[in-house]
Amino acid sequence: MAIFAERLRLLRRALRRRKLPAVFLTSPISRRYISGFSGTSGAVLVGVEGRARFFTDFRYAERAQSELFSVFDVVSVEAGFTKALKQEITKRKIRRLGIEDNAMSVARYESLKRSLKGCSLVGVGAMLEEQRAVKDEHELAVLRMAVLATDKTFQKLMRWLKHLKRAKRLPSENAVAWKVRDIIHSKKFGEPAFPPIIASGVNAARPHHEPSAKKLKLGEMVIIDLGVKINGYHADMTRTIFLGTPTTKQRKMYETTLRAQTAAIRYLKSGGRSAKQADAVARRVINAKFPGAFGHALGHGVGLEIHEHPKLAQNSKDVLKPNMVFSVEPGIYLPGEGGIRIENLVVLKEKRCEILSRSPKYLQKAVI
Amino acid sequence: MAIFAERLRLLRRALRRRKLPAVFLTSPISRRYISGFSGTSGAVLVGVEGRARFFTDFRYAERAQSELFSVFDVVSVEAGFTKALKQEITKRKIRRLGIEDNAMSVARYESLKRSLKGCSLVGVGAMLEEQRAVKDEHELAVLRMAVLATDKTFQKLMRWLKHLKRAKRLPSENAVAWKVRDIIHSKKFGEPAFPPIIASGVNAARPHHEPSAKKLKLGEMVIIDLGVKINGYHADMTRTIFLGTPTTKQRKMYETTLRAQTAAIRYLKSGGRSAKQADAVARRVINAKFPGAFGHALGHGVGLEIHEHPKLAQNSKDVLKPNMVFSVEPGIYLPGEGGIRIENLVVLKEKRCEILSRSPKYLQKAVI
Repeated sequence: MAIFAERLRLLRRALRRRKLPAVFLTSPISRRYISGFSGTSGAVLVGVEGRARFFTDFRYAERAQSELFSVFDVVSVEAGFTKALKQEITKRKIRRLGIEDNAMSVARYESLKRSLKGCSLVGVGAMLEEQRAVKDEHELAVLRMAVLATDKTFQKLMRWLKHLKRAKRLPSENAVAWKVRDIIHSKKFGEPAFPPIIASGVNAARPHHEPSAKKLKLGEMVIIDLGVKINGYHADMTRTIFLGTPTTKQRKMYETTLRAQTAAIRYLKSGGRSAKQADAVARRVINAKFPGAFGHALGHGVGLEIHEHPKLAQNSKDVLKPNMVFSVEPGIYLPGEGGIRIENLVVLKEKRCEILSRSPKYLQKAVI
Repeated sequence: MAIFAERLRLLRRALRRRKLPAVFLTSPISRRYISGFSGTSGAVLVGVEGRARFFTDFRYAERAQSELFSVFDVVSVEAGFTKALKQEITKRKIRRLGIEDNAMSVARYESLKRSLKGCSLVGVGAMLEEQRAVKDEHELAVLRMAVLATDKTFQKLMRWLKHLKRAKRLPSENAVAWKVRDIIHSKKFGEPAFPPIIASGVNAARPHHEPSAKKLKLGEMVIIDLGVKINGYHADMTRTIFLGTPTTKQRKMYETTLRAQTAAIRYLKSGGRSAKQADAVARRVINAKFPGAFGHALGHGVGLEIHEHPKLAQNSKDVLKPNMVFSVEPGIYLPGEGGIRIENLVVLKEKRCEILSRSPKYLQKAVI
């Protein structure tokens, strides 16, 4: 299929730039990205010349044959990929082989080094991550579907929550998290991209809070962070809602977070391409009102992983490129009080920045 | 707490045996095992002398302080653990530091090596995995709860499935998988230990089949592989059921699988402690009737990971020890026809072997 031929072409271009004759892909994500194969075992050898090889063990051979596309030769191996790899390396006279040093374990590396004597192993660093950060048309289409499903999930969740509030039967954080899963499944939207984060009241001050048995209460802010995964591609969105009228301080927190997000998006829309600068623009807005309260990075890429390249952070060196899809998610966290986070996914274009997430984010819509 | 002090004591004993003054634990599983901390960031330094240190970034510092027990000093670091680690290594004059080479990436290892000049890094291999394979009383108690919850889930699932069969509304594999999740959640049993495997008809010939939209049909065998996770500990069980009267061949497949399991358990009960031999005993029974149809290993340890040490397989060198908990799961897979798997968890004791899974496994109970 054209998609995978194109991904291989880009990978081979990256290999030529690094003067590497071949790369051995062993991480599940790279394997899936380059071949489309979603099984849990297999490894891929891609040379700048010759056909790409997909090694898999006999348990998956049948499935790999049916899933893989005409661009790969599938090689079924009995145990471990090293022997089959060695044969191939020898046959092709490959003296330098790229490996995924960000993912491969030290033990596997040492073992591979012993087996492939005469061939030096060269870490390719973030080569694959950087290629994956720029989405192709197929990936953008799937991500749009995942974002749409996420918006719909949130909409249905709000309807349910408003109903319970009216009935004076506010649920626990756990029950809200389960409802998210239930909507995603029962509507056949896909599957949860990650365990939903539901953080209410003081729990919302912890950016990585796990849902608990704590019931939601009137007067609280609730952070709702959820996403739908479709065909391996993750959407990610956060909204913060108020159960009843917000206090003046809560209102200020919310408006400040929103202004920080708008400022970052304006920077991107105006052609800004520094990930560090995007973070700084948002952080400045928050620090002016709530110094030090924005305790995490502004955003991260999404795709086959929920957190991937690029990283929009204070120390990021990443340059943003067209067709990158990432989150913009400023937050304010006040220990002992509560927290706010507002997160949208965006896709960067040549001369613009398109906001993918459509769920309403203005204060009046956040009050339920 | 006594549990963690004891785990540290055992780890220090293992370090002394390897003549290592300290180990740096970076994998999430080791971190959780040794400290009880379930957050997603942190690293642990354990020396044979001095107090153990828990490094975490500021996002988790509050939580780590509240979760960690008196045996650790919690050190909050700004970015990365390397600097804080280096200070500690220098202060304690540590010249050789154990690292988890099975889990640590090549890139992280290279970076650590550069930072910790003068201190050599030594892979500890499966040291932690081997310690974790032998469960302590606390772990056994949690695993028993997880197994009990798994049995209950299966029982409720069967009730639901029988009802649908009577109503002539057989569900899809996806719907059965969702029902498993629904039971686990709605009964507050815990959470799914892994995505349930529901493989019906010819799909059952693939040991790692993922549930599909295919509906179950009368006359089919259905492999149901599920488990509940409680406090991070995984249970794992498989049953194969018949939708209607099995054919003579299906019956023979089932009885052979069951006899293979019984033979392996008899070997363990009689004091057999070779993982390889346990596999061989079961494999012999299957190969006598269905040569080559048992296409995977006999079993695996369970605990904080769903697949962990020991491995009961044809090429295993593992010696089974008291208080190891593992699966015994022979299977028969006939491509184009179907498959059977019957899996129980057992705990090995000094002079016996206790079967943990209680769900019925005899043929008459498998016919619904």
